[in-house]
Amino acid sequence: MNRAALFQTIKEKQSFLCVGLDPDPKRIPQHLGTGPAAVYRFNQAIIDATRDLCVAYKPNTAFYEAMGPEGWEVLRATLEYIGDKHLKIADAKRGDIGNTSRMYARAFFETIHADAITVAPYMGEDSVKPFLDFEDKWVILLALTSNLGSEDFQMTKQEDNQPLFAKVMQKAQNWGNSDNLMFVCGATHPEKFKILREIAPDHFFLVPGVGAQGGDLAAIAQYGMNDHCGLLVNSSRGIIYASGEEDFAEKAREEALKLQQQMADALILNLLPQNLEKRY
Amino acid sequence: MNRAALFQTIKEKQSFLCVGLDPDPKRIPQHLGTGPAAVYRFNQAIIDATRDLCVAYKPNTAFYEAMGPEGWEVLRATLEYIGDKHLKIADAKRGDIGNTSRMYARAFFETIHADAITVAPYMGEDSVKPFLDFEDKWVILLALTSNLGSEDFQMTKQEDNQPLFAKVMQKAQNWGNSDNLMFVCGATHPEKFKILREIAPDHFFLVPGVGAQGGDLAAIAQYGMNDHCGLLVNSSRGIIYASGEEDFAEKAREEALKLQQQMADALILNLLPQNLEKRY
Repeated sequence: MNRAALFQTIKEKQSFLCVGLDPDPKRIPQHLGTGPAAVYRFNQAIIDATRDLCVAYKPNTAFYEAMGPEGWEVLRATLEYIGDKHLKIADAKRGDIGNTSRMYARAFFETIHADAITVAPYMGEDSVKPFLDFEDKWVILLALTSNLGSEDFQMTKQEDNQPLFAKVMQKAQNWGNSDNLMFVCGATHPEKFKILREIAPDHFFLVPGVGAQGGDLAAIAQYGMNDHCGLLVNSSRGIIYASGEEDFAEKAREEALKLQQQMADALILNLLPQNLEKRY
Repeated sequence: MNRAALFQTIKEKQSFLCVGLDPDPKRIPQHLGTGPAAVYRFNQAIIDATRDLCVAYKPNTAFYEAMGPEGWEVLRATLEYIGDKHLKIADAKRGDIGNTSRMYARAFFETIHADAITVAPYMGEDSVKPFLDFEDKWVILLALTSNLGSEDFQMTKQEDNQPLFAKVMQKAQNWGNSDNLMFVCGATHPEKFKILREIAPDHFFLVPGVGAQGGDLAAIAQYGMNDHCGLLVNSSRGIIYASGEEDFAEKAREEALKLQQQMADALILNLLPQNLEKRY
């Protein structure tokens, strides 16, 4: 799914929601059973309940790897079940020397058919570029993450007085462009979205940290949106664990719907001309 | 394997060699067949040929993930085949928000029984600490990597005039200690080992980049060794692809033996008192 198609989908659904599929076997409703098959049934139900409300799904590979070899099969099957109408993001935070990053790219883009992968920037250009060599695929590079530890290195100033995350975003724009490179910018730093958008005016941002982690959607949209939306806002736990009972899918839909409605408002407010045309 | 046991093994084997098990299906000798089963046979032969010459094995997860779900099974079986006389390092370069890093820790320490995992520091303290909570397990944190891209961020100066890798190593020493935390320091920067050792006098360093990447073992030993060796030097491609023919295991052993002999010399030269006691 390229940038134009993604923006088209966002306008059609009035949503820039990404649903995080991070199924912890310990938190899956009991009636689904246990083990990898239960996790797959859980994912299917969440996907069925949210398909029309979101534009992307983001399974975090950790939750699948923790199940052993079968977990990887659940991940592959989940991506297949999503189909090709949503952006499929493997939240993997990989990054290694060139020949190894190429293997990771093959693992995610060719073996399990993800559209995008999150990548950690610490190892620099030759660890990121192999992922950018794949046509019609996306790298989503960590810039300013949603966790407390983002203060340890990402926000520390460099000798030119800029924080590290700014340096990462600037350098990376020489490696990829707004058609194959996005940045992870955490919702827990809404005050930073003005500067984040100044640094990368055209790129999509993947924004985790809304919901369980407490980020403010309206502020992010106000400062972070650009003329093709430019935001994918993720919620994982807030949606998939809205209920631990038999009504988990119904409650997940309710939470997703709340976010979608806030997003529709934010799109009208911040993308007025396009939306007026569409809605009135 | 704790630090004392690791040093004991190093002295007994006169080796601080780590063999990198990065099997690219395209480079496996033809007579072994194809697919995941061939990769497992390849790993078994390499392990059998090098067991007495090395103290650690380091499979890089990328090469297993690229095979799909079965690759993860090969990784698990390979670690089982190595047994408990060697340090088993999952070269995974993971790191995510706290609840996710805990899932990765379970994936590697509990599901496939690795002793150590490489972790990327970009997301800071709460992305690293969950791995340190596991008893008798090791975190090997990326500090200064062996690739060209290490110049992009790791070597750039902070406002206090120190490079980022130094900041990473200093901060991380508040999170873990020399019994559960090592650092990745690439052999392609031998001139940096004096300062690396000053920053972390007691910690083990995992040193990739000897062999295919061109690092200088003698220089690294001279500046990087401490009184309990403190070095694990890895070679992957230089050993496992020494021959692409039926004699691949024999040739792998020859390459491993060359490195082991250089290491024995380096141990005598740099750890003279202990070695004199042992050898004469």
